Amino acid sequence: MALSPSRVVEELKELRELTGDADGAQRVAWTETWERAREWLRGKVAETGAREEIDEAGNQWFTIGEGPALLIGGHIDSVPNGGWLDGALNVVAGVEVLRRIAADGSPPCAVRLVNWADEEGARFGRSLFGSSAAAGSMADQDELRARRDAEGVSLPEAVGVYGVDLDRALEARRQLEGAAAYLELHIEQGPVLESLDLPLGVVLGTFGVERHQVTFRGQAAHAGSTPMDKRRDALAGASKLELEIREIARRVGDGAVCTMGGVVTRPGIVTSVVETAECLLDQRHLDATKLAEMLSNAEAASRRFAEEEGIEVEWERIWSIEPILFDSELISLADEAVVEVAGRSHRLPSGPLHDAAEVARAGVPTVMLFVQSLRGLSHTKLEDTREDHLELSVQALDRLAGRAMARVAGG
Amino acid sequence: MALSPSRVVEELKELRELTGDADGAQRVAWTETWERAREWLRGKVAETGAREEIDEAGNQWFTIGEGPALLIGGHIDSVPNGGWLDGALNVVAGVEVLRRIAADGSPPCAVRLVNWADEEGARFGRSLFGSSAAAGSMADQDELRARRDAEGVSLPEAVGVYGVDLDRALEARRQLEGAAAYLELHIEQGPVLESLDLPLGVVLGTFGVERHQVTFRGQAAHAGSTPMDKRRDALAGASKLELEIREIARRVGDGAVCTMGGVVTRPGIVTSVVETAECLLDQRHLDATKLAEMLSNAEAASRRFAEEEGIEVEWERIWSIEPILFDSELISLADEAVVEVAGRSHRLPSGPLHDAAEVARAGVPTVMLFVQSLRGLSHTKLEDTREDHLELSVQALDRLAGRAMARVAGG
Repeated sequence: MALSPSRVVEELKELRELTGDADGAQRVAWTETWERAREWLRGKVAETGAREEIDEAGNQWFTIGEGPALLIGGHIDSVPNGGWLDGALNVVAGVEVLRRIAADGSPPCAVRLVNWADEEGARFGRSLFGSSAAAGSMADQDELRARRDAEGVSLPEAVGVYGVDLDRALEARRQLEGAAAYLELHIEQGPVLESLDLPLGVVLGTFGVERHQVTFRGQAAHAGSTPMDKRRDALAGASKLELEIREIARRVGDGAVCTMGGVVTRPGIVTSVVETAECLLDQRHLDATKLAEMLSNAEAASRRFAEEEGIEVEWERIWSIEPILFDSELISLADEAVVEVAGRSHRLPSGPLHDAAEVARAGVPTVMLFVQSLRGLSHTKLEDTREDHLELSVQALDRLAGRAMARVAGG
Repeated sequence: MALSPSRVVEELKELRELTGDADGAQRVAWTETWERAREWLRGKVAETGAREEIDEAGNQWFTIGEGPALLIGGHIDSVPNGGWLDGALNVVAGVEVLRRIAADGSPPCAVRLVNWADEEGARFGRSLFGSSAAAGSMADQDELRARRDAEGVSLPEAVGVYGVDLDRALEARRQLEGAAAYLELHIEQGPVLESLDLPLGVVLGTFGVERHQVTFRGQAAHAGSTPMDKRRDALAGASKLELEIREIARRVGDGAVCTMGGVVTRPGIVTSVVETAECLLDQRHLDATKLAEMLSNAEAASRRFAEEEGIEVEWERIWSIEPILFDSELISLADEAVVEVAGRSHRLPSGPLHDAAEVARAGVPTVMLFVQSLRGLSHTKLEDTREDHLELSVQALDRLAGRAMARVAGG
């Protein structure tokens, strides 16, 4: 049976009908709609003869063949009012690739499709549930135990309904024991490929992130009676930093991004100089050394601005994560596959995290393919990708899977 | 009877005891505490033999002598938890000057002390109630009729308790008919005199004000997946404008002040480029032409920044008022008086509005004296001025009154 990329598009539409409504996809993990999607997936895979297993973390595995395993992974769960492609594309394209491989006869290694449980974390605010359990990086189980959804239902209770015992979730680690490669196809959720007029790209890894609250403190003073040279304006420090982080990102380069996502000004009234400006700062890079350089440059700049303005500055870390690099050999194979189907490839980092990052952190050689997103939109029903691009992405995943199987089988 | 500046300080403390508490002055207009302060003032003036009149707007007048009038004005009302000097200094120092003039025998013109009603507007959010009625500039009586305090009491009802019929308030205009000069002493409520180490200054007028909401609109975009050169960051426009308004103020000079008092960022989250930045902008100058120049410079700069950033900008006027200039001859007389008592004078604009601005708008030659404020604080119980400075200010007001009387009597 030949690969049918158009069938993938049809089946994605079928899934959308089954699990979406006028507001978008409603496949939130640990809900009936999500369970309906998992059942639908089971039906789609059935013809391949794959063995199904749901592991201790709720991940749904389909396996054909024996030996060291090539993994193809995605997630069928969505955010509420989500798009039709985020997560589901990977899974449905993976079914088609599995069909093609099964039809070709016994593969030279095991091939496993995994539908990760609760990538989005939409109900309990904790993303990458299933993949972090399988990767052994789910370190905060006490914290998870205390989480409740908007209706007050606890996380252990909600996952228990679907057969998951939080105390045993980490036993899912054994799933990665024989894994020799991991592939994931995803919509870009950003504007890069569209701006380059390319359907497909190869992902180098996921960004390291440094996230801080930077607070400038000056002195409130009457806007009418305080001469300009007597002011200690916290907003001046924030403004200089907002403009400087862009220079830092340009200087460091290689895809560096810096964002001041918000400023809160106090007292924040028209008749007073700003006393306090609280800035939310997000810096990302694929290279840990460069990320550290960006952070230290921003810190130094903020101190310089504080001195210039006669104000104070304080940094507080909100969150950080190291960059996670994908496998260089798989990146090359992915490039070859993309060039074959689309003529030209482009390598880019991923801003958002993905299940692939958890798998890579666990030491499994990993790569991702991105397909162009229209207008960079996702997590909304407006999320979309051209159908011809979706079909190209299925072809690329299939060719990459062929190359990866050869590598896995070759040891 | 010789002038007794120290008695003014003692009487201000007496008033503080009578009408303040641990949180500060509580002489909010149209309250029992305010009425108690007016009665106390009546008692203090009694010995001068002045004729008392409360006009249709609730202003309390004390008059000695006949003919064209020299007015000395202040307000005994305060904000809640206010300072001991804001408003009351003018009134209590005026009583002492009235005593001195009365003791010297019949003055060559009428001398009138006025205690303006509700300068602060603390209860109904409308300042300069009594002076704007007397100046004929209270144009918004329908709006006043609809105002209610925090307890739901309407303004007409509250002022009615103190004998004021809002429909007749503008009849207070006749009070300014014979007015030939108006003097007002006030604490600076700013840091200028303190920074110059001067006790006293002469006020040139009150600033014209242009107050706008400036809204920059860009595009929300994921902080991780949107390259720097693909962003339309509204906060970049706001930051450039915040820094530019300081350059504009420096360039225009002559006391120009520009303030961005607050920025509201939306969506305002760490993972998104800012889509909308709403900025509160306040620009002030004593010269109407220069104020207009500042405004047009800021508008042009904002449009330039919007173009540079690929974003949009929109201006909406919140409020504006023309500069009000004081009388140049009275300014010279005030300079002479200040130099006599303090050795050196300094001319400065007033950022806040005062009753004097209403009187000047009505065409009465007007000047104000400022006495140094410690740390520029007011509208708080921490408001303070050195007692030796207060005494110097009473002397300066007295000498200015003497010079002004001669001018008024000379026609």
